[in-house]
Amino acid sequence: MPVNLDPPGPDRLRSVPGVTLGIAEAGIRKANRKDLLLIRLDEGAEAAGVFTRNRFCAAPVTVCKAHLAAAPIRALVVNTGIANAGTGSRGIADARATCAAVAELIGCRPEQVLPFSTGVINEFLPMERIKAGLPRCRAHLGADHWFDAARAIMTTDTVPKAASRTVAIEGKTVTITGISKGAGMIKPNMATMLGFIATDAAVTRPVLQRLVQEVADRSFNCITVDGDTSTNDSFVLIATGKAGHAPIADAGSPGYAVLRSALEAVAVELAQAIVRDGEGATKFITVRVEGGRDQQECRAVGYAIAQSPLVKTAFFASDPNLGRILAAVGNAGIDDLDVGGVRLWLDDVLVASGGGRDPGYREEDGARVMKQVEITVRVDLGRGAARATIWTCDFSYDYVRINADYRS
Amino acid sequence: MPVNLDPPGPDRLRSVPGVTLGIAEAGIRKANRKDLLLIRLDEGAEAAGVFTRNRFCAAPVTVCKAHLAAAPIRALVVNTGIANAGTGSRGIADARATCAAVAELIGCRPEQVLPFSTGVINEFLPMERIKAGLPRCRAHLGADHWFDAARAIMTTDTVPKAASRTVAIEGKTVTITGISKGAGMIKPNMATMLGFIATDAAVTRPVLQRLVQEVADRSFNCITVDGDTSTNDSFVLIATGKAGHAPIADAGSPGYAVLRSALEAVAVELAQAIVRDGEGATKFITVRVEGGRDQQECRAVGYAIAQSPLVKTAFFASDPNLGRILAAVGNAGIDDLDVGGVRLWLDDVLVASGGGRDPGYREEDGARVMKQVEITVRVDLGRGAARATIWTCDFSYDYVRINADYRS
Repeated sequence: MPVNLDPPGPDRLRSVPGVTLGIAEAGIRKANRKDLLLIRLDEGAEAAGVFTRNRFCAAPVTVCKAHLAAAPIRALVVNTGIANAGTGSRGIADARATCAAVAELIGCRPEQVLPFSTGVINEFLPMERIKAGLPRCRAHLGADHWFDAARAIMTTDTVPKAASRTVAIEGKTVTITGISKGAGMIKPNMATMLGFIATDAAVTRPVLQRLVQEVADRSFNCITVDGDTSTNDSFVLIATGKAGHAPIADAGSPGYAVLRSALEAVAVELAQAIVRDGEGATKFITVRVEGGRDQQECRAVGYAIAQSPLVKTAFFASDPNLGRILAAVGNAGIDDLDVGGVRLWLDDVLVASGGGRDPGYREEDGARVMKQVEITVRVDLGRGAARATIWTCDFSYDYVRINADYRS
Repeated sequence: MPVNLDPPGPDRLRSVPGVTLGIAEAGIRKANRKDLLLIRLDEGAEAAGVFTRNRFCAAPVTVCKAHLAAAPIRALVVNTGIANAGTGSRGIADARATCAAVAELIGCRPEQVLPFSTGVINEFLPMERIKAGLPRCRAHLGADHWFDAARAIMTTDTVPKAASRTVAIEGKTVTITGISKGAGMIKPNMATMLGFIATDAAVTRPVLQRLVQEVADRSFNCITVDGDTSTNDSFVLIATGKAGHAPIADAGSPGYAVLRSALEAVAVELAQAIVRDGEGATKFITVRVEGGRDQQECRAVGYAIAQSPLVKTAFFASDPNLGRILAAVGNAGIDDLDVGGVRLWLDDVLVASGGGRDPGYREEDGARVMKQVEITVRVDLGRGAARATIWTCDFSYDYVRINADYRS
């Protein structure tokens, strides 16, 4: 059961002028499920992406990077079931063949297609079934299929993840809609699991590239479920330019700030949705670290807490075993940390100060907060002004069950 | 159930001339269990130790470091139940008061006593009960109580951990006996959970200090259960000098090599015992990384595999989901890793080569190895001659149960 996460109804997702989406059952790994998604972009659209830093990056990630550098993008193709990662040169050939099949269907060059895969690592794509499914995706293309698209890219997700916003730029209404997937193998590193956000804003390519990095750093790059960075993480931002305002060509312009803020809101909602639907999650934890010398050490402390199996099982048990959080802070790699200056809160309850349990702390106050479904852990390192926030979930029996069963 | 780990019978543990041990029920956290251990050393013994690098290191660790620098050690005192970590200045005072009580009992200075604690973090020691228990420890002192001692320092351990060896130096029989504890919050960093090894070899203090570090680096510093470095990790090496050979004062001497090798064998056995009895463990995994540029990157790859919850749950499920191991290799932080040169074996089965699944790999071969209780994962990075070995266990429902229940 995801934590405080309503699946977005199809009616709550706005279509983005210039973007159509079609899905099909291709039987990639399991029968009777939609597992293939085609996203077509009108001419004039710009796309930019950030991708996993896992050195065993998947074949489609390698192909995506090359294609984004080469030509204006006209389509994205996404399959679930098999990740096409750890597949060597045959995997690259398969990803390229998928692009070629899409290009022939919609009338563009293969380099104008971005391929994405998610699912089991170390297995090859069933190319015949993918090629057979693509015409059905094309036949299904429509502007209002965002919900279907979110459902078609799920793996161990229990609900589809999508979000929409509108903002005004130069008096024109600009729409932003995005989808994401992911529940396990989640610790995005400069990218994310699969995330796609489209807007009809008009943005030049260099500005879009900057936006995608800035937005990723404040959303998908702030979450962890299990600390495992996927081989296939990809986050792509699409701007179709249909909204009618003058193109945003300068990161200092007012339109840039408005658009970035709205994109960030959509991306944070999608990133948090991944954590709320994290494998086996029963709680949603916000780890806020402040008082650091720089953001990097705040993030290191945040992840040390958010990834500790001992901290995560204590949250699952609603046990205010707060020493485990202090131990995680001590393990974050800050060699000159003065623990006497560290303070720790659970929501508004001051738990630790002066290197130990705060004199005013009462166990029943900690226990009360730990029973909640949403909890904020706040750590003040007491050595600077930097801060960072990490979102994570707890660690339950179901995480083990899901990952011991997956594939079978 | 620990993995292939027979509890050492009291008869298999040799006493070490110059060392006596006594235990008692002090009721530190739970009734009806031996939870206090006193180890007395004869005059002339040398001791050296390495300790946790967790910045929230426990009060006894701080006191140990100061006492080791100050005076020849005459006694060690260990309690289980409460870790005296995250306890600020009151924790330091409690650790010192424990040393003072021991010193008064056995007739030495407080600085000649080393204190150790293990158990729940962020709670204070019950000093009156500890002081009341110490005379009972002294009354129980005996040379053949190593097994009792191993049992008295357990927390979530299911079996006591101890090992013995003898070697000959200059024709004299030298005995080495050690004990350790630990099952969770295990990723020692330059130290270990509690580990104590004593020998009647004669060793100068500088040589002993070098030995303790070298032995720790090849034993306790090569294991992980859950990636969480404890606040209380301590490994102490004691040399009583009773064996009758000339003192080893030079790391280049033949006696040094013989002694180091035997100490390492005892330490590896104790370190592996911690993994075999890891919380919820059903399998014992050896991760051997070779072909690296330096040992550090081999260790990083080894830990990336050994700490991945996805890899660990796949071992629990006996599922040859080998893509998860490749993903972990890719996440180890080697930015210039050429994945085309990486090879992966499960025992003798070549699984991956050339950036993907090896052409000769058959799933049934991987499945056969994964069913075993002891498995070696071997990774050749194909870029150098360095190597490293990490030992770990799988990740089961019971890990969650144990850590969600602990404290309650």
